[in-house]
Amino acid sequence: MVPDYARARQGKRAAYDEATIHAILDSGLVGHVGFVADARPMVIPMAYARVGSTLYLHGASKTRIMGLDGQKLCLTVTQLTGIVVARSSFHHSVNYRCAIVHGYARKLRDNEHAEALDAITDHLLPGRSAEVRPMTSQELKATGVIAIEIEAASAKIRTGPPVDDAADLPSTSWGGVVPVVTALGTGVQDGHTPDNTAAPASLRKAQMKFLA
Amino acid sequence: MVPDYARARQGKRAAYDEATIHAILDSGLVGHVGFVADARPMVIPMAYARVGSTLYLHGASKTRIMGLDGQKLCLTVTQLTGIVVARSSFHHSVNYRCAIVHGYARKLRDNEHAEALDAITDHLLPGRSAEVRPMTSQELKATGVIAIEIEAASAKIRTGPPVDDAADLPSTSWGGVVPVVTALGTGVQDGHTPDNTAAPASLRKAQMKFLA
Repeated sequence: MVPDYARARQGKRAAYDEATIHAILDSGLVGHVGFVADARPMVIPMAYARVGSTLYLHGASKTRIMGLDGQKLCLTVTQLTGIVVARSSFHHSVNYRCAIVHGYARKLRDNEHAEALDAITDHLLPGRSAEVRPMTSQELKATGVIAIEIEAASAKIRTGPPVDDAADLPSTSWGGVVPVVTALGTGVQDGHTPDNTAAPASLRKAQMKFLA
Repeated sequence: MVPDYARARQGKRAAYDEATIHAILDSGLVGHVGFVADARPMVIPMAYARVGSTLYLHGASKTRIMGLDGQKLCLTVTQLTGIVVARSSFHHSVNYRCAIVHGYARKLRDNEHAEALDAITDHLLPGRSAEVRPMTSQELKATGVIAIEIEAASAKIRTGPPVDDAADLPSTSWGGVVPVVTALGTGVQDGHTPDNTAAPASLRKAQMKFLA
């Protein structure tokens, strides 16, 4: 059962199955995390990864969100895929996929920290954690990670052309979709990289993974 | 003065000047709006526009957020511009710009509704509201718009290559930035558009505005 608070208000665009929700989470670049601090809503963009039904969020140890434990969080991942151009202002829209996840903040267990950080690195650059040296204990200490156990989630998806009023259709004006394309470009090496150094395999995997 | 709740915890990446914050807001495609419902944080992607120091959010009249009045909201607009590939897991990062705006929900004044909707349409498709017929009173009624008066805001920006530990630099491995490119593609016309109909001027303006 999907609890009422997690139910989309526009039912026809909603989905609640795990496969749909996981697919959106797994192909998003960053998430927007909502929490309540002093009765005030806060929304922060964060790197994340999903492992089973657990989400890991990553930030500096000293940030507010890393101190949360047991508090309610919301993580939303949105992929905008088009601007929908209709014959009336009213029917303009956007094509998108989003997953809205509700859950509780949980501090990491001792043995979970390195695995969670690897998952976050590998979410953006698949396989990257195995290409670099292991983290030092000092680095682990300085890097905050918090877990969210998924309690309820919904997806919302809009695809396809504008849905215009019949009365507006005999017009000869243009209607359709402007694609919004998000993709990774060719890597730009820094000044410390020797000439002709091949980019790591994880970079190519990321370019494939986040292909528009 | 920037109130403490609006201060970024990572000070070196923060900016508080209006020009920087407005530039990020004005060039974002969608925002993520946070509010508190039954003591639970909710984060919803929404179309928006800025007019002066007022933000307008747009959604179906029946959605929860349209019923808010006087409650605290947070709107975050994030543009991801790169994945930062370092020689150690620890120094991986992302390049991005984000604006985090705090304010109060305010119901629209009677004469504000049409102007606010035009602003939202024109945010994504500059000049579009003047290309289509005026909205009917029924359409206005069915479209929810809510205002946020900006109370405090911050921006966070990261640019540039990885910052690696000196000890990791003698390695011959690749370091640099993978650009994340978000741009609008060529419009795809729908089945009701006569062949050889020119796309509207607003579409070209949007392609320029959101150029990566």
